[in-house]
Amino acid sequence: MSTLLRIDSSIRAAASVTRAISDTLESSWLAANPDGTVVRRDLAAEPLPASAWATAVGASQTPEAERTPTQRAALALAAAVADEVLAAELVVIGAPLYNYGVSAHLKSWIDLLVVDPRFRPGSAPLTGKPLALVVARGGGYGPGAPREGWDHTTPYLRRIFAEVLGADVTLVDTELTLADVTPAMAELRPLAAQRLAEAHQRADEAGRELAKATVAAA
Amino acid sequence: MSTLLRIDSSIRAAASVTRAISDTLESSWLAANPDGTVVRRDLAAEPLPASAWATAVGASQTPEAERTPTQRAALALAAAVADEVLAAELVVIGAPLYNYGVSAHLKSWIDLLVVDPRFRPGSAPLTGKPLALVVARGGGYGPGAPREGWDHTTPYLRRIFAEVLGADVTLVDTELTLADVTPAMAELRPLAAQRLAEAHQRADEAGRELAKATVAAA
Repeated sequence: MSTLLRIDSSIRAAASVTRAISDTLESSWLAANPDGTVVRRDLAAEPLPASAWATAVGASQTPEAERTPTQRAALALAAAVADEVLAAELVVIGAPLYNYGVSAHLKSWIDLLVVDPRFRPGSAPLTGKPLALVVARGGGYGPGAPREGWDHTTPYLRRIFAEVLGADVTLVDTELTLADVTPAMAELRPLAAQRLAEAHQRADEAGRELAKATVAAA
Repeated sequence: MSTLLRIDSSIRAAASVTRAISDTLESSWLAANPDGTVVRRDLAAEPLPASAWATAVGASQTPEAERTPTQRAALALAAAVADEVLAAELVVIGAPLYNYGVSAHLKSWIDLLVVDPRFRPGSAPLTGKPLALVVARGGGYGPGAPREGWDHTTPYLRRIFAEVLGADVTLVDTELTLADVTPAMAELRPLAAQRLAEAHQRADEAGRELAKATVAAA
């Protein structure tokens, strides 16, 4: 039996684009892998405690016998987060672009994850593990756009998950998600709708392909 | 009388490199500007609540009469953060590179800051305001280094503070700060020491120059 770990960081619930695209990927994975289990961690609905990471770092530099209960709890949380990632055959991470950067909730999770001793620098513990990054950008930041290069989250998340941790990253992204609610972007609405439809289609395909990969790996 | 707003995000106290360099800048600013006041917000020692930003965003989309007490508190916190920035003649931000990215504590502060109506997109409310970014990187990520381009915080912070908000950004950065505690970086220790000394010297100069600018503006 294989497991999909679903990480969400959108602060929107029903209206979230990354949640909707991740739902498509998850449904398609489950359809091709009916015995699969989905484990969820919602970093926006239930944020990690703001001081967990710093406490865990301090704890990891303190001899085990001298750790306080608070330090032990922070390390246990880091271990729980790491367990979920290591136990999953597929990790799906919803990552909206917030103020042109990485979701603070998601960055807190990454920081805590890599405190766990199994994620020590250089160990690339996710080598070969499929990981789908579902990115939504409110504007358009691609080549030729006035704000070309303003997506400061996708390159960072690729760096961490692919280069540092070794995961096999599939990117499913969309953009112009603010066109529907931004008068100045009104003429971009047809393009936004097209990009969204393409993202759902890629998510659907990725779910089926990654189900094959996880069945083969399980 | 002029005010320096000091924002810290290092999770280290005594051993923090960004705190030490910011101290140098602050001392030099105070020496040249003896009537100046320093206001502090320590995002690592007293992190903003993990849900403050999402609550404030929801509140800003809710008619004023319908806001819950929790929503009002989140908007009041955003306003307090914005007040501090707007009231300061000089903002000094300590920003260590954590896991090659932006401090989650600092990103939470940026997100909350720009919820305040005075920071609406396109308003560039910090136009002409001096802002010193004090960045410390554990490794070396400059041209020719094996991990060239792995500093994902400096370009992002410049984007937000200079391009989006309009501040007049002075960068004081150092690198190789992990050389002293990393055996594999032992041969880089003399270079690390040189970079650190240079950063303190730039901080000292920047403090004096920015004191002149703040006196002229006050």
